[in-house]
Amino acid sequence: MVRVAIVGSTGYGGVELIRLLQAHPQVEITSVISSSSAGAPIAEGFPHLTEIRTDALDGVDVGLMKSKADVVFLATPAGVAAKLAPQLLDAGLKVIDLSGDFRLRSAAEYETWYKHAPADEAYLSKAVFGLAEVFGDRVRGVDFISNPGCYPTATLLGLVPAVKAGWIDPATIIIDAKSGVSGAGRGLSQTVHYAEANENLSAYKVNRHQHIPEIEQTLSDVAGRPVVTTFTTHLVPMTRGIMSTMYASIVGGPGARSEADFIGLYKEFYAGRKFVRVRPQGKLPATKEVWGSNYCDIGFAVDSRTGRVTIVSVIDNLVKGAAGQAIQNLNLMMGWDEATGLQFIPAYP
Amino acid sequence: MVRVAIVGSTGYGGVELIRLLQAHPQVEITSVISSSSAGAPIAEGFPHLTEIRTDALDGVDVGLMKSKADVVFLATPAGVAAKLAPQLLDAGLKVIDLSGDFRLRSAAEYETWYKHAPADEAYLSKAVFGLAEVFGDRVRGVDFISNPGCYPTATLLGLVPAVKAGWIDPATIIIDAKSGVSGAGRGLSQTVHYAEANENLSAYKVNRHQHIPEIEQTLSDVAGRPVVTTFTTHLVPMTRGIMSTMYASIVGGPGARSEADFIGLYKEFYAGRKFVRVRPQGKLPATKEVWGSNYCDIGFAVDSRTGRVTIVSVIDNLVKGAAGQAIQNLNLMMGWDEATGLQFIPAYP
Amino acid sequence: MVRVAIVGSTGYGGVELIRLLQAHPQVEITSVISSSSAGAPIAEGFPHLTEIRTDALDGVDVGLMKSKADVVFLATPAGVAAKLAPQLLDAGLKVIDLSGDFRLRSAAEYETWYKHAPADEAYLSKAVFGLAEVFGDRVRGVDFISNPGCYPTATLLGLVPAVKAGWIDPATIIIDAKSGVSGAGRGLSQTVHYAEANENLSAYKVNRHQHIPEIEQTLSDVAGRPVVTTFTTHLVPMTRGIMSTMYASIVGGPGARSEADFIGLYKEFYAGRKFVRVRPQGKLPATKEVWGSNYCDIGFAVDSRTGRVTIVSVIDNLVKGAAGQAIQNLNLMMGWDEATGLQFIPAYP
Amino acid sequence: MVRVAIVGSTGYGGVELIRLLQAHPQVEITSVISSSSAGAPIAEGFPHLTEIRTDALDGVDVGLMKSKADVVFLATPAGVAAKLAPQLLDAGLKVIDLSGDFRLRSAAEYETWYKHAPADEAYLSKAVFGLAEVFGDRVRGVDFISNPGCYPTATLLGLVPAVKAGWIDPATIIIDAKSGVSGAGRGLSQTVHYAEANENLSAYKVNRHQHIPEIEQTLSDVAGRPVVTTFTTHLVPMTRGIMSTMYASIVGGPGARSEADFIGLYKEFYAGRKFVRVRPQGKLPATKEVWGSNYCDIGFAVDSRTGRVTIVSVIDNLVKGAAGQAIQNLNLMMGWDEATGLQFIPAYP
Repeated sequence: MVRVAIVGSTGYGGVELIRLLQAHPQVEITSVISSSSAGAPIAEGFPHLTEIRTDALDGVDVGLMKSKADVVFLATPAGVAAKLAPQLLDAGLKVIDLSGDFRLRSAAEYETWYKHAPADEAYLSKAVFGLAEVFGDRVRGVDFISNPGCYPTATLLGLVPAVKAGWIDPATIIIDAKSGVSGAGRGLSQTVHYAEANENLSAYKVNRHQHIPEIEQTLSDVAGRPVVTTFTTHLVPMTRGIMSTMYASIVGGPGARSEADFIGLYKEFYAGRKFVRVRPQGKLPATKEVWGSNYCDIGFAVDSRTGRVTIVSVIDNLVKGAAGQAIQNLNLMMGWDEATGLQFIPAYP
Repeated sequence: MVRVAIVGSTGYGGVELIRLLQAHPQVEITSVISSSSAGAPIAEGFPHLTEIRTDALDGVDVGLMKSKADVVFLATPAGVAAKLAPQLLDAGLKVIDLSGDFRLRSAAEYETWYKHAPADEAYLSKAVFGLAEVFGDRVRGVDFISNPGCYPTATLLGLVPAVKAGWIDPATIIIDAKSGVSGAGRGLSQTVHYAEANENLSAYKVNRHQHIPEIEQTLSDVAGRPVVTTFTTHLVPMTRGIMSTMYASIVGGPGARSEADFIGLYKEFYAGRKFVRVRPQGKLPATKEVWGSNYCDIGFAVDSRTGRVTIVSVIDNLVKGAAGQAIQNLNLMMGWDEATGLQFIPAYP
Repeated sequence: MVRVAIVGSTGYGGVELIRLLQAHPQVEITSVISSSSAGAPIAEGFPHLTEIRTDALDGVDVGLMKSKADVVFLATPAGVAAKLAPQLLDAGLKVIDLSGDFRLRSAAEYETWYKHAPADEAYLSKAVFGLAEVFGDRVRGVDFISNPGCYPTATLLGLVPAVKAGWIDPATIIIDAKSGVSGAGRGLSQTVHYAEANENLSAYKVNRHQHIPEIEQTLSDVAGRPVVTTFTTHLVPMTRGIMSTMYASIVGGPGARSEADFIGLYKEFYAGRKFVRVRPQGKLPATKEVWGSNYCDIGFAVDSRTGRVTIVSVIDNLVKGAAGQAIQNLNLMMGWDEATGLQFIPAYP
Repeated sequence: MVRVAIVGSTGYGGVELIRLLQAHPQVEITSVISSSSAGAPIAEGFPHLTEIRTDALDGVDVGLMKSKADVVFLATPAGVAAKLAPQLLDAGLKVIDLSGDFRLRSAAEYETWYKHAPADEAYLSKAVFGLAEVFGDRVRGVDFISNPGCYPTATLLGLVPAVKAGWIDPATIIIDAKSGVSGAGRGLSQTVHYAEANENLSAYKVNRHQHIPEIEQTLSDVAGRPVVTTFTTHLVPMTRGIMSTMYASIVGGPGARSEADFIGLYKEFYAGRKFVRVRPQGKLPATKEVWGSNYCDIGFAVDSRTGRVTIVSVIDNLVKGAAGQAIQNLNLMMGWDEATGLQFIPAYP
């Protein structure tokens, strides 16, 4: 059994890691860690864990992690992992970081979008961006993985095959993304106060979301030239789920590529990957159809009138967009089948 | 007092007309009409009307309407008004049609998108498209108004000033629209079954929605040349509310127009109109901020990186998107202030 | 026009007072007051008021209120009104208090349940408990009204006629109450964080809720002897609405009173009162059927097997449970029809 | 591997059986069966099963079931199992029935409450009522289990220990139950239409619910004399979850039993059973804390003023209230650990 520690166990990402890792056949959770609640039983703040996790929360202590764990998951706010990950790596631990601190190769870009001091460049360059279905080969066997953000996961899995194939014009990409409220985390704010968020739909951080450079970095890599996108995020009155609705002009104009063509392209691109499901022609995925699971489902609509393709991609933001993908990355890191411990069915309805 | 009859009183549009007209100082509802439930007290199917409306539903009878009413609101499914409106007009009644049957000038276009036989062209040409803030002068004093659809209302109010001013390139317009579930009406279906629609977000009728030609007809009028758009609709787990998130390239490229420019343009365009509220710089409207009211709120984000503007427009689909706008049209039809009976505050939270 | 000031305008009770008073034909809101946000435009924190209320928030200043208003509504947290109301009354203002500070006649009881210092007994004895349908005659023309709590309103309107008539045994009363989340106010807390409250149902403050003595005080008055009840409150994933499901043994046992009997008793008790609607036999009210309105709807089920009656009473907690009832009390205070400005239809769906 | 067939695979109970059985280490689903959709791929109606279950639905055919399965789960509407179960048993199959057809020992009682013809008494008497934590010993190794209803599961697990111990007076029991909307199944109706059920709370079938005799049958068994209860059901705007809030007078009056006493009694009663979690003093369970899991969580509040205890019991209606408990019963039927395949953590948030 591989021993894992989870830093940030009292956030939604951390508690979802506990849910999923508890069911993983080759892993033992040996330390649940919180800087704010150290010493308290974890079930106190999360009564759903009553009689399942009876351990008290550990504090953030590199020596303790070294003694208790082989792999550390960092489910901390941005800015924390930047300092902690290097210490853990230096101590010989493997690290999977779910924060955004190691996703951007450029420290300057990080500072621009995150408004924090970036991580040390020596460690930035060591982190492998764990978008397994796109960069799977790079992820296998490494010691330090930066887990992609929730929006970038849904968006990039929906765009990369078409951009890589040169089927859509990257300069025309517009991304209209929508997220359930859990994406905002467990911290209190007016925006996610129940009476304000319920029966409400709002747009936020238009063209200013810190996930934009992460999306553009990968699209630029894949396109072989700089890609700049329009990116809008919306808050939807539901707990879990992200939908990314993406628009782009088809190279060659109306008629150049059909829905069947796109489906074929994507099925081939994702052949052998269990967690991307390409939907049949005429069908678009809904967020509930991946609720609680590690799937990313993708569908297409080609408009012969405008020559544009509309790509719809959905994930559960806390699973494929966070904890589930992190475990998928653990599996690859350890050389296991990437689906180990993750092959459960979405909870429907 | 003007006497009004409401055909389709057992649908959500009809029952919202009752709610709003009941509070109108110059109107008396003299007949609530339903083809399916004639004879039953209306409060039986809608207990919220207990002791408020004690009348029984009338059947669909032109003679009866003629004897009881001056103005008839048609809140019927598409296809019904096409046949009924001409009879009512011929009987000398004024008509406000909330269905889509008289919104498209072209009968052929109607048939293509609605898959129904269109209305008689003689009557099609008589109907005035009641988008008051855009075509207000045309609406005043007429006898037959076709009330705009919910999506077109939010979308056109958000796009028309910029298209008319030539500030955005119509060929680049992409509309990502989202609606609460009441937009699907009171008819039962799997899609709007609670357990399926709750905690779920789905896209539907991508590029196939019957509101597309209505949007394009007006944009083409305003632009002075044919406009074709990309239009996606989503179902959001809330009862009321539409948000239209619209994207377009700014003519002149990055830097040509600022958010302040757009705000100024729209404030001028809508000067004197009470129901369009242009939000200040840096603020985008949320659907809850217009819940239950006749307002359409609009905000802007200009992206200097891509040279695109993102326009966010919200309405309550049952009020500004249906019953409220219909009453606004009644007001104009009768020569009253357009806000008569409609100046209530959104219900928040 | 009567000039009114609203203290606590940035809470949900205060902002609902604004919504309803704005539509009142005999009232002008001359001062919106907040201790925490004085100086800021009210529409800044509540964008739904954009272009409707352009005034800035006043601070809490008795002299200013005296100069601007005839009547002051106190929509403040418990503990604030206890100090403020006496000053306002001494200054010659009329006061309607929506907090709980003046609902209990016994200062000792207040301290036990509210854990605050009680108001001065001289003023406690001046406050008239404004449950209009029960104590209407006492309310007319007074200067100082204590507006009932949300749970007590739904509960007492559902119980008083039966207790007064001696039809149910007060010792057997069990009240299972459920509230939408707005009842918890606008203050942030984990319990009403969207991701925690959505898709969740919880019980809280069982037998410890501060509304218990308020319910028991009135039931004891009506019964003519001390009544003690079992009272449970639940948090339901919706914004507005309270349902009180009440159980009691029928005096005389099974067969002594039928549903028709109860309906008759209540219809007679509430004859001439517009805001209590007694439902017909076999029908029970749902919270949505009073959403946004000042109605309290009541239904009955008599069980011949157990000899118990189940009474279901629903209100909108922010209207009949707070702002609406306060305005009803204003109407009575001023000698107007109690329904003035309040006769709007519930928003359905 | 034990081979199982699921009849009623297109209902919510059936599809939840698929979700859970797919993860069971000792079971293989060999036939998914639907009378209405035979021949269609199951993923067509349930796209969340895409690429997970690629089989087509079988028709209802006893011979086919005999050839493909060892155990048959019946997740059919009431009335269907009454006829089908005997045939399956006669064919030598083991049967777990999730409908109510075999829960009542008395055929006459069944007819009274279900308004259907009852099952053959010979088979009624063979069925073992599978409330494992109460009747665990009877369930082990049998061939025919009747799975308890959702409301009875939450209610009985909350009441049986106290009734059995003689701590509460059965004649005083009042049950106020609340359910999420999925409990109403996948069939369409106005009541569970999204726009009607959202932001709404309603009571239904007061004292007429068909789960009442099931609750009373077991309570009477345990009490050793006939028990009659008051039972109300409510529809709560959430997809999953049942809360049963139960009231009873404590034998011996105020002071006779403390919360700690009840906790101790229940912990002892449920010692060794993994799926009932008794909450510590001062804590009451919320439905979200068992969402998606097989747990039943129970908490207590003792009121020294009235001498009553309030017991709060929560389950996921589709898991512990249906599919999960059925699998727990399969485990006991097969002689396995009752928790096999069911030890997953609730999905929170």
